[in-house]
Amino acid sequence: MGSTVINKATKPAPQLAWIAADWGSSNLRVWGLDKHDQVIAQASSDKGMLALKANEYEAELRRLVADWLPTTGQIDVMVCGMSGARQGWLEAAYLPVPTRLDQLSQGAVTPTLTGNQLAVYLLPGLSQTRSTATHFDVMRGEETQLAGLVADSPDFTGLACLPGTHAKWATLEAGTVSGFSTYLTGELYQLLASQSVLKHSVSSPSAAKDGLNDQACRDAFISAVRAINEAPETFSSRLFGLRAQDLLDGQLPTGNTRNAVLAARLSGLAIGLELAGACREYSTDKPIMLIGNPTLSQRYRLALNAIGYQTQHLDGDTAVLAGLRLAHYALEATDC
Amino acid sequence: MGSTVINKATKPAPQLAWIAADWGSSNLRVWGLDKHDQVIAQASSDKGMLALKANEYEAELRRLVADWLPTTGQIDVMVCGMSGARQGWLEAAYLPVPTRLDQLSQGAVTPTLTGNQLAVYLLPGLSQTRSTATHFDVMRGEETQLAGLVADSPDFTGLACLPGTHAKWATLEAGTVSGFSTYLTGELYQLLASQSVLKHSVSSPSAAKDGLNDQACRDAFISAVRAINEAPETFSSRLFGLRAQDLLDGQLPTGNTRNAVLAARLSGLAIGLELAGACREYSTDKPIMLIGNPTLSQRYRLALNAIGYQTQHLDGDTAVLAGLRLAHYALEATDC
Repeated sequence: MGSTVINKATKPAPQLAWIAADWGSSNLRVWGLDKHDQVIAQASSDKGMLALKANEYEAELRRLVADWLPTTGQIDVMVCGMSGARQGWLEAAYLPVPTRLDQLSQGAVTPTLTGNQLAVYLLPGLSQTRSTATHFDVMRGEETQLAGLVADSPDFTGLACLPGTHAKWATLEAGTVSGFSTYLTGELYQLLASQSVLKHSVSSPSAAKDGLNDQACRDAFISAVRAINEAPETFSSRLFGLRAQDLLDGQLPTGNTRNAVLAARLSGLAIGLELAGACREYSTDKPIMLIGNPTLSQRYRLALNAIGYQTQHLDGDTAVLAGLRLAHYALEATDC
Repeated sequence: MGSTVINKATKPAPQLAWIAADWGSSNLRVWGLDKHDQVIAQASSDKGMLALKANEYEAELRRLVADWLPTTGQIDVMVCGMSGARQGWLEAAYLPVPTRLDQLSQGAVTPTLTGNQLAVYLLPGLSQTRSTATHFDVMRGEETQLAGLVADSPDFTGLACLPGTHAKWATLEAGTVSGFSTYLTGELYQLLASQSVLKHSVSSPSAAKDGLNDQACRDAFISAVRAINEAPETFSSRLFGLRAQDLLDGQLPTGNTRNAVLAARLSGLAIGLELAGACREYSTDKPIMLIGNPTLSQRYRLALNAIGYQTQHLDGDTAVLAGLRLAHYALEATDC
């Protein structure tokens, strides 16, 4: 636990213009920015929504940013993520799609604080109901990454994919989210790899984290993606097939490589099932915009290329900061 | 722990002809039978494969059947299930398909015992490799239930489904298994219902166990089966959709019924994915033979009927006993 403060300027106080925060289920990350929106300080802690009661958020935020604050004046703190959930700090009700991504701050809520040094804005997530789409869906945090895409390309039109525990796919039309779908991909992979009968076959902790540098792993991953994309109905039997293959297949490599190959295949099945769904729901001729960390985005790029799609990549951290910056601009514009 | 002995005749010893045992991962069940193959004694314990070392099996078996044994003579014990696995009592190597189900005893192994009161035969499982099929697969225990089907219908030709943690589908041709597939259905359901983000929405312990007696649950189950059968690629997004529906859908009932409806839908998604795969792999015009406990078989019957298939039902306990009986016959015939 505790905070990690890195990259902190010696005397940030005079330069600090505002604070950006990504408050997830498991972590809090904060950045101090100057008036040119350059990061001049940065900190993080493991006090995510799951570790905090509503009345503990303010103290945790202050703990991380106290040293950055000037002696006078009020600093805006733009926050995205689970702190705005019903079980978080204060609920910022979902904005229903279609939603303009440069207008997220209109749905922000402002928790009452004990002092007036900070002005905190919790950004809302997005929701989708059967009135506008075929299925219910929600997101909290990813909308701000999508806003980061729009910050640099205000009229962005196309398909974006945000890989992760609950991977999101969103269609954007001229900077507006028109629809989205969530895939349980990362969580499915983790549950199967660590808790199911498959744990005996894929127990390679590094397997899920590397960039598929090993050729045998890359081949196994790609072939699993293609197989599931062609026949998604085989997902459940192919899962057990991994275990059977481990028991019976004399052609598999031995030792850690064996586990890594089977883990890569499991990852390919999980991601392949997501792609089979998303690419059928949202057909596109244009490159798909991947927003996320480089390793996972690289894995998705491999998978999408294998089934005939091109990709572009926007770094996830860059996106969330750009999205918070866009929300801050919008807020300042409203204030004027 | 410990054994439960029920239905035990006062003086079984003179009547006992042989013993049948189903030794699974988590449980051991034994039956004492007379020369007419009627059950005259019965016991069970929680000492499955996962709870035993190889040198502990004999003592556990003796503990359950000691009171049944005559003072003289040797009693055959026919055993199916995980005791024949590599991590079990003694490995009974898989028989590769195609396999005649009345010949399972030819692959039985006989562990060395400390006395000569018992003669134990551990039946083998079945395996499938890429030399005869599109995928690797294994079963241990279910082959004996399939043999039970063949015991009464020696020339059975058709498709059999054995619901469970790892559901099995097998094609039989005149009493021979020609191919099979395992679906991780039960395990997927359990992991998702108890360990994933969905646990908040389906936390109704009875939901998975009942026979879908409630009309709202039955409707939710059937509609999920149909949706996944039509579009199996939507499985992963429909999983998260359950959570989103719980958060957003004002039409859902409240309280326990809400959880039960969502649990029924989750069950429908998991079973529907299995049916989508199995019914595409093994198309059939004939009724599908369900072998298993009545509650789960009833759930599968509802699901199969909803997508246009007819079913028959053979009780799982009846099947395993009939299969062990068939193996015992074959053994006696070989001995003669």
